[in-house]
Amino acid sequence: MASQGKKLINDPNAVVTEFIEGLVETYPGLQYLDGFPEVKVVLRADYASAMLDKVAVISGGGSGHEPAHAGFVGEGMLSAAICGEVFTSPQVDAILSGIRAVTGPMGCLLVVTNYTGDRLNFGLAAEQARSEGYKVETVIVGDDCALPPLRGTAGRRGLAGTILVNKIAGAAAATGLSLDEVAAEAKRASEMVGTMGVALSVCTLPGQVTSDRLGPGKMELGLGIHGEPGAAVADLQPVEVVVSHVLQEILSPDTNYVPITPGNRVVLLINGLGATPAMELMIAAGKAVPQLQLEHGLAVDRVYTGSFMTSLDMAGFSISIMKADEAILQYLDAATKAPHWPVGVNGNRPPAKIPVPLPLSHSAKSYESLSRPQQLSEQGCLLEVAIEAAVIAIIDLRDNLNEWDGTVGDGDCGSTMCRGATAILEDMKKHYPLNDAAETVGEIGSSIRRVMGGTSGIIYTIFCKAACAHLKANTQSVVTSKQWAEALEVSIAAVSKYGGASAGFRTLLDALIPASAVLQERLNAGDDPCTAFLLSSEAAVAGAESTRHMQAQAGRSAYISSDILATVPDPGAMAAASWYRAAAMAIKNKYQVHE
Amino acid sequence: MASQGKKLINDPNAVVTEFIEGLVETYPGLQYLDGFPEVKVVLRADYASAMLDKVAVISGGGSGHEPAHAGFVGEGMLSAAICGEVFTSPQVDAILSGIRAVTGPMGCLLVVTNYTGDRLNFGLAAEQARSEGYKVETVIVGDDCALPPLRGTAGRRGLAGTILVNKIAGAAAATGLSLDEVAAEAKRASEMVGTMGVALSVCTLPGQVTSDRLGPGKMELGLGIHGEPGAAVADLQPVEVVVSHVLQEILSPDTNYVPITPGNRVVLLINGLGATPAMELMIAAGKAVPQLQLEHGLAVDRVYTGSFMTSLDMAGFSISIMKADEAILQYLDAATKAPHWPVGVNGNRPPAKIPVPLPLSHSAKSYESLSRPQQLSEQGCLLEVAIEAAVIAIIDLRDNLNEWDGTVGDGDCGSTMCRGATAILEDMKKHYPLNDAAETVGEIGSSIRRVMGGTSGIIYTIFCKAACAHLKANTQSVVTSKQWAEALEVSIAAVSKYGGASAGFRTLLDALIPASAVLQERLNAGDDPCTAFLLSSEAAVAGAESTRHMQAQAGRSAYISSDILATVPDPGAMAAASWYRAAAMAIKNKYQVHE
Repeated sequence: MASQGKKLINDPNAVVTEFIEGLVETYPGLQYLDGFPEVKVVLRADYASAMLDKVAVISGGGSGHEPAHAGFVGEGMLSAAICGEVFTSPQVDAILSGIRAVTGPMGCLLVVTNYTGDRLNFGLAAEQARSEGYKVETVIVGDDCALPPLRGTAGRRGLAGTILVNKIAGAAAATGLSLDEVAAEAKRASEMVGTMGVALSVCTLPGQVTSDRLGPGKMELGLGIHGEPGAAVADLQPVEVVVSHVLQEILSPDTNYVPITPGNRVVLLINGLGATPAMELMIAAGKAVPQLQLEHGLAVDRVYTGSFMTSLDMAGFSISIMKADEAILQYLDAATKAPHWPVGVNGNRPPAKIPVPLPLSHSAKSYESLSRPQQLSEQGCLLEVAIEAAVIAIIDLRDNLNEWDGTVGDGDCGSTMCRGATAILEDMKKHYPLNDAAETVGEIGSSIRRVMGGTSGIIYTIFCKAACAHLKANTQSVVTSKQWAEALEVSIAAVSKYGGASAGFRTLLDALIPASAVLQERLNAGDDPCTAFLLSSEAAVAGAESTRHMQAQAGRSAYISSDILATVPDPGAMAAASWYRAAAMAIKNKYQVHE
Repeated sequence: MASQGKKLINDPNAVVTEFIEGLVETYPGLQYLDGFPEVKVVLRADYASAMLDKVAVISGGGSGHEPAHAGFVGEGMLSAAICGEVFTSPQVDAILSGIRAVTGPMGCLLVVTNYTGDRLNFGLAAEQARSEGYKVETVIVGDDCALPPLRGTAGRRGLAGTILVNKIAGAAAATGLSLDEVAAEAKRASEMVGTMGVALSVCTLPGQVTSDRLGPGKMELGLGIHGEPGAAVADLQPVEVVVSHVLQEILSPDTNYVPITPGNRVVLLINGLGATPAMELMIAAGKAVPQLQLEHGLAVDRVYTGSFMTSLDMAGFSISIMKADEAILQYLDAATKAPHWPVGVNGNRPPAKIPVPLPLSHSAKSYESLSRPQQLSEQGCLLEVAIEAAVIAIIDLRDNLNEWDGTVGDGDCGSTMCRGATAILEDMKKHYPLNDAAETVGEIGSSIRRVMGGTSGIIYTIFCKAACAHLKANTQSVVTSKQWAEALEVSIAAVSKYGGASAGFRTLLDALIPASAVLQERLNAGDDPCTAFLLSSEAAVAGAESTRHMQAQAGRSAYISSDILATVPDPGAMAAASWYRAAAMAIKNKYQVHE
């Protein structure tokens, strides 16, 4: 089912000039020659000073391979890139203009991919430039390892290995070498590299129909970068198998494409073909390195993973292997301002990455070291009473909560809260260090996190952990009522921030926010803590009841109509009011007993 | 027609850990925590020294957005990236492990994208870390400009603008600012940026079926980065129109998403969504910049174009606009070792790029300045006679050449060659500077290039230009026979190099190579030039005839069976032998007349 290819472009005939316009907008260091549409040449903005004492390095070819070659223009790599129309060799006049623009007394090297059109057009431009008095050398790169070795002049196509040759040539030129020396380095590099690709989809030319040549479940091996069919079509395999096959083809001693033998050092280039996500390229890199090491006996000095020489929107990648030595590594590592040369890839690599050990908790106390104290302090007693009352209130309210939640949500609020409550009760008996209020509040959070799923579980855990952190940082052995009030405020802020709800959103905060406000207000007014807590808990209940008239802004209730919402209060708010009220009542009763 | 999505992966459930393995193979400066598969944390390999005196900056979230966030770990940007499963928020324990690993006495900032899962999990990890004694702050980024402003907590999603916030936070931390200061810079940045996306295809989760939600000719506007549907589906438009719409949405004064008004300075980020070729991203950048300048009255300080925060293999891009000031530009420009932060983007940008003027030819003589000399020198006379004879021989051989070519090629060899020959004859009368042999040979090349198409035209132009360059560099006013012989050799070498053919490939070289060999041999043996040329031309004819028994290696004939090939000689070789022989005979006759 062929269909018109979809691309985010304007005029299919203007894609190359419009690409160049965007490129130079993005990179201030790049410029282009004023010769559109015939002459499409990207050059270093500082070409005038660079050409004085350095050999210029020029590459190019048909477009559709972006970022190649224009994205590799910059100090230390290419002086200029000559861009043809999509998959079409640039015209001789464009190449000649590029040569004239960037070539100084040191001369220029043309790095040409091994296609008849590129060879002839660059070749003629080179000869024409020579006849004008320029010093020009050319190096032709044919790194393809997919086609049979002997096919006459069709020979080996120039693929992503050209990028490595360009880097080496550019770095050699930057050191001030002569034209002959730069050409010799580039030629040597071109003989050290082999490339083979695999694709999941063919590419679509701008304005053209998308081919359905590669059906579902199929891949193409040994493809070119111009939409030409690959050497073979096969069933799609796991990438580990694909990588293994490609590496074997490149390194085959039968074809002897590259002079690489066990014990050699190599660099690896994983090149996306245009529409391949970074994830897939990195997975391929992660498979290729150990295979090169273990199955081929090679040391991998550098890995370059990215999209360097693409084929429009083709999905797939190519792998290039270059034999490495100190000179090649130095050139590859040399600094460059070419925007698309990868960064962060230099430096010696250990044979295998040893992951960093998982760090331990900084917390002094671990789960196992906690235990219920033999003797409870006065605060410990109050804490136990309050927790127990709060928990029992939730257990008692379970069916109501489920019923309300059944109207406005998925009906499990009571069950979920009850699961947390039960765990708290059990854990408290086992190991809550009740005389340490901060730790105990933190442990309530841990109990909740252990058994309660969903948003409510994590919200309550945040609530407890925020209080714990605040109490730890701000209290001594006994927590004052003012400190409790502050902890409540901090916890509410954390829940609001991470949960994204505020007052009036029909959540548990509509019980807790008024409770917190009244608590602070009464304590500031001089009420005794017990009374303040009690009044605060009345505000919590009133707040929870008021949610009947609120439109939900968060959670599942946000999708329920206001008529239905008005029939019930928010179960989360009711649960919060319920445990808070129960704790306040329990404290009051405890004090009355004592009095 | 939904079908199984094609990806180059192994186990769909292991894509994230395998991505990380490839990432750290590629970048020696990155490491990961030994907690696979639950804990997937990428961190700076030099984390231990960095945490001593700098605030750590951590980001993360679900995977599938590569290179975000792991590709932005490095000095000057993120200290660690916490990776969840694909499109799934990381677990609290993974986040906590990351915090513990990289946080020192200065504390850490968590930059969290505004999704409920990320907010809650990072929030709980932050509170837990605080309760363990760490200093932790969080900044939540919601830069989405596609959804209506008021949608409660669902609010604005965190999109590619997060990358800019991460860079600013990382740069601020690198300067040694305190945690509160770093958090304040990050928060300010998060309030300055707006993002909106457009997609041509939806993404496919590893191991899942590909949706056909977006049909041919359709695009989706205002999409998320998790495969969720966009705000609107529309007919695909030229990218200039798409960019205009997206910029208007982001900068709309009605929604007031970003505090950007005419006269402000901004930075622009064009973000590929995973399967978008660099060409399309650059075209969008090239359209967005002038629109921002001219239609919105904004100065564009920086342009970042690439794939930063993707959505697996989604085709399309998002645009982010951030209000810029000196502080923000300084942070964005600050050096970083994060491998995927773009390079070459810094520096002041002129309001518009003025392209570099096309360079003129270095050649002293232009077409117009050439003219046939009033008086021909002896060499000029010989040259005229030889050229005329060669040209007439080709015109006479026209039908034979076409006939031979009809058997083994497309039948136009004679017509094409004749077109060149006629042009040479005309141009010679008009302007060939016959007393200057080098220039005359060069002009023959120009005549051929002007009228002859195809490979043969460019091959002959290379032949002439190479000879011209050699003669110019190595001869004085009169060219010696030895110099002519050298020029022939150089020209053959150029044709062989750029054309890719050698002796025995059934091309014109099979006439010219033996001719060149005999010419040099006879001159070295002391023959007079005229005799040497004549003997050499006999070798050319014999060589051309011998092509009958050659298998073609280049050009169209490579696809013809040897039975058919044996019935005719190679027309290109016969043409070359013919003009070469005619020239030699003409010189001989001229000498005989003189004698």
